[in-house]
Amino acid sequence: MLRIVTQLAEAEAELRRISERTQADQNLHREATVREILQAVRRQGDRALLAYTAEFDQVELSVAELKVSGAELEAAYQAVSPQLLSALRLAKQRIEAFHRQRVPSSWVSFPGPEIVLGKQYRPVDRAGLYIPGGRAAYPSTVLMNAIPAQVAGVPEIVMVTPPGSDGLGGKGISPAILVAAQEAGIQTIYRVGGAQAIGALAYGTETIPKVDVITGPGNIYVTLAKKLVYGTVGIDSLAGPSEVLIIADESANSLYVAADLLAQAEHDPLAAAILLTTDLKLAQQVQQAVTTQMEAHPSRLMVEKSVVNYGLIAVVPDLAAAVALSNLFAPEHLELQVADPWALLDLIRHAGAIFLGHHTPEAVGDYLAGPNHTLPTAGAARYASALGVETFLKHSSLIQYGSAALREVASAIQALTQAEGLPAHGQSVQVRLAEGS
Amino acid sequence: MLRIVTQLAEAEAELRRISERTQADQNLHREATVREILQAVRRQGDRALLAYTAEFDQVELSVAELKVSGAELEAAYQAVSPQLLSALRLAKQRIEAFHRQRVPSSWVSFPGPEIVLGKQYRPVDRAGLYIPGGRAAYPSTVLMNAIPAQVAGVPEIVMVTPPGSDGLGGKGISPAILVAAQEAGIQTIYRVGGAQAIGALAYGTETIPKVDVITGPGNIYVTLAKKLVYGTVGIDSLAGPSEVLIIADESANSLYVAADLLAQAEHDPLAAAILLTTDLKLAQQVQQAVTTQMEAHPSRLMVEKSVVNYGLIAVVPDLAAAVALSNLFAPEHLELQVADPWALLDLIRHAGAIFLGHHTPEAVGDYLAGPNHTLPTAGAARYASALGVETFLKHSSLIQYGSAALREVASAIQALTQAEGLPAHGQSVQVRLAEGS
Repeated sequence: MLRIVTQLAEAEAELRRISERTQADQNLHREATVREILQAVRRQGDRALLAYTAEFDQVELSVAELKVSGAELEAAYQAVSPQLLSALRLAKQRIEAFHRQRVPSSWVSFPGPEIVLGKQYRPVDRAGLYIPGGRAAYPSTVLMNAIPAQVAGVPEIVMVTPPGSDGLGGKGISPAILVAAQEAGIQTIYRVGGAQAIGALAYGTETIPKVDVITGPGNIYVTLAKKLVYGTVGIDSLAGPSEVLIIADESANSLYVAADLLAQAEHDPLAAAILLTTDLKLAQQVQQAVTTQMEAHPSRLMVEKSVVNYGLIAVVPDLAAAVALSNLFAPEHLELQVADPWALLDLIRHAGAIFLGHHTPEAVGDYLAGPNHTLPTAGAARYASALGVETFLKHSSLIQYGSAALREVASAIQALTQAEGLPAHGQSVQVRLAEGS
Repeated sequence: MLRIVTQLAEAEAELRRISERTQADQNLHREATVREILQAVRRQGDRALLAYTAEFDQVELSVAELKVSGAELEAAYQAVSPQLLSALRLAKQRIEAFHRQRVPSSWVSFPGPEIVLGKQYRPVDRAGLYIPGGRAAYPSTVLMNAIPAQVAGVPEIVMVTPPGSDGLGGKGISPAILVAAQEAGIQTIYRVGGAQAIGALAYGTETIPKVDVITGPGNIYVTLAKKLVYGTVGIDSLAGPSEVLIIADESANSLYVAADLLAQAEHDPLAAAILLTTDLKLAQQVQQAVTTQMEAHPSRLMVEKSVVNYGLIAVVPDLAAAVALSNLFAPEHLELQVADPWALLDLIRHAGAIFLGHHTPEAVGDYLAGPNHTLPTAGAARYASALGVETFLKHSSLIQYGSAALREVASAIQALTQAEGLPAHGQSVQVRLAEGS
């Protein structure tokens, strides 16, 4: 049963416990394994990929099979329903429209005579998207990773995903994933997952090209691999299990709240579903509704595990207290099922995505509202944001000084180079003044 | 002597060697040390900080001495020259003016009836700046880290820096650093450096508060510590040794080019100074000028080490070949000492900062032009950018749907939840349709 606490101190302690449910410390031995896998891929390339795929995925591949063939890509369209195809297209259109807004672009300014400053934006040359297999195939994740890369203008985008996601016990990839990829303009897909796939993208193999940035969620091995290769390549973030925090007042509908909590819990036994409410009656109704709705879930045992271990209802004195607790937790998803959600926004400091009002279930954002569903987890919203076009862009600062402009700042630079003990820096200015101007 | 190569293949091989001069692999044993330090700080707090400071910095501190006192802060102003103070103020003004441009801010849009989407930007709650001691005190680094955090509106900014940077053999901090900090609005400074300082900022101690994002350069131990705590906190980047790549044609002045190469080499024995030129005569003149100018350098042996090991002049057939090599190297600093530098910009894909024309030595950007001098090194410009206001900002996605808008997308969401095997996601939409609207 979903537990109700009514003391603020207890709520705070519980939120802290939930927030720390995945401490990196527990992963030291896994990290050693991952390091070994990365090294093997770096040294042996494709050969290591095939060996690990046989070992971890129980799938025997040849080098030629690493890349998903054109025939497979085409066939995937036959295997998805027209409903799914049109849903993917609607999602793509809305996600793309959102991501096209406020994309940074190159600029220059002229802050003084003979001075030009600016920034030149460029996409990365190559992006690698990791799409998990495992519990289920997530075509929405394909769209959420591929579309920002496309909008950024990345010339080459490749995807890796483990074999077997079609659920037929072989080498196949889920047709939904293959169709989503093609709808998002990706034709280059490699049949490999896990830490070995991250190694392939970071270092390159005979078959898989080295990329500049790796994005996409994965299990703990994938996440550890991303952390280890960070610095060799860029990464989007270190994804942990998903979480929702709902703030609800007496205007909320307990059935909606309960459904949203369960939608979170069904992701993963480590998923966290939290309700903070000012209304004790609502708390009790939600508790009841969660129990009822859970009965019917096909993965009831898994959902129950998440609800019992990392579910929480806290009754709080007022909405300000709820927001304070939420800011402490810095949730990946924050739902405001309150009468005036916009009034709370000013107080909210940390959240990956904020869902406002009674008719905005997280699912609408997970799939097609437009904003990215790849969001900071485990408190990372304190410092990080959703995956976006910026993940695939970078800029170069632009600086031009003329000789008179340089002369004007020469003595200031001289004072600073002296303070820092860098005489050649000073000399690089002086030599330009000596030689006429 | 600075070596000249004239074959493209050799130039490419040399650039690759230089680029790989700091491979993370060599750092496994150091990483174990750093991990131990971080654990100790996490568990023992201030006590560990004092012990490591005694061990690594040979400075005995009391807990009370960790924080730089108000009296010390005040006294620092007496110890810097009026020239340095006014240089710091000029630099501050120009850096701030540049960083105030194009700061992202919150927005909403209305893409359809009953639909609101947007982004809400917020600064992090607390930022921690690492300012190295070591070879020299760098007040410019204080400004380059503090000003973006201030422009972002970070409510609490703290700084850590190792004791002894005043060069008096005691606990003192360089007055130039203390003055730069105060000019940038920072009053909270802790006398601690190394991996232990990173641990303190990431986990918090009795004296030092846990922060949300850590920025600033440091030695290899600091960099490894930043990589290890990434995920617990945000970080700016993993800084490696500095580098410049100069593209020059026959219009370039060999004395300017040589001075800029040496300004890079004087940073560090691992610094890299590279010239790509279309003009063999210029190559020879620069080689000669570097030798001559190096004679007079007070740290001649160190500069020579850098020049010999990681310096290079490559003569290339044309500017396009030079740019292609530069894109391969993805330099931290790129100088275009050519007749028409703006004509080359379009071809440049990767560079931390680009200095255009004959009168823009890197030093002008290092100190006061405005753009940040904290830049991606070791090829990271392929995917990363300068430190900026964005480093201290993050955003929450905003999503609001009304009931009719939700109804319109319900069947698409249903198709996607079915494909992904997430029935409770579908249910969270259905429950809202069932209950009237």
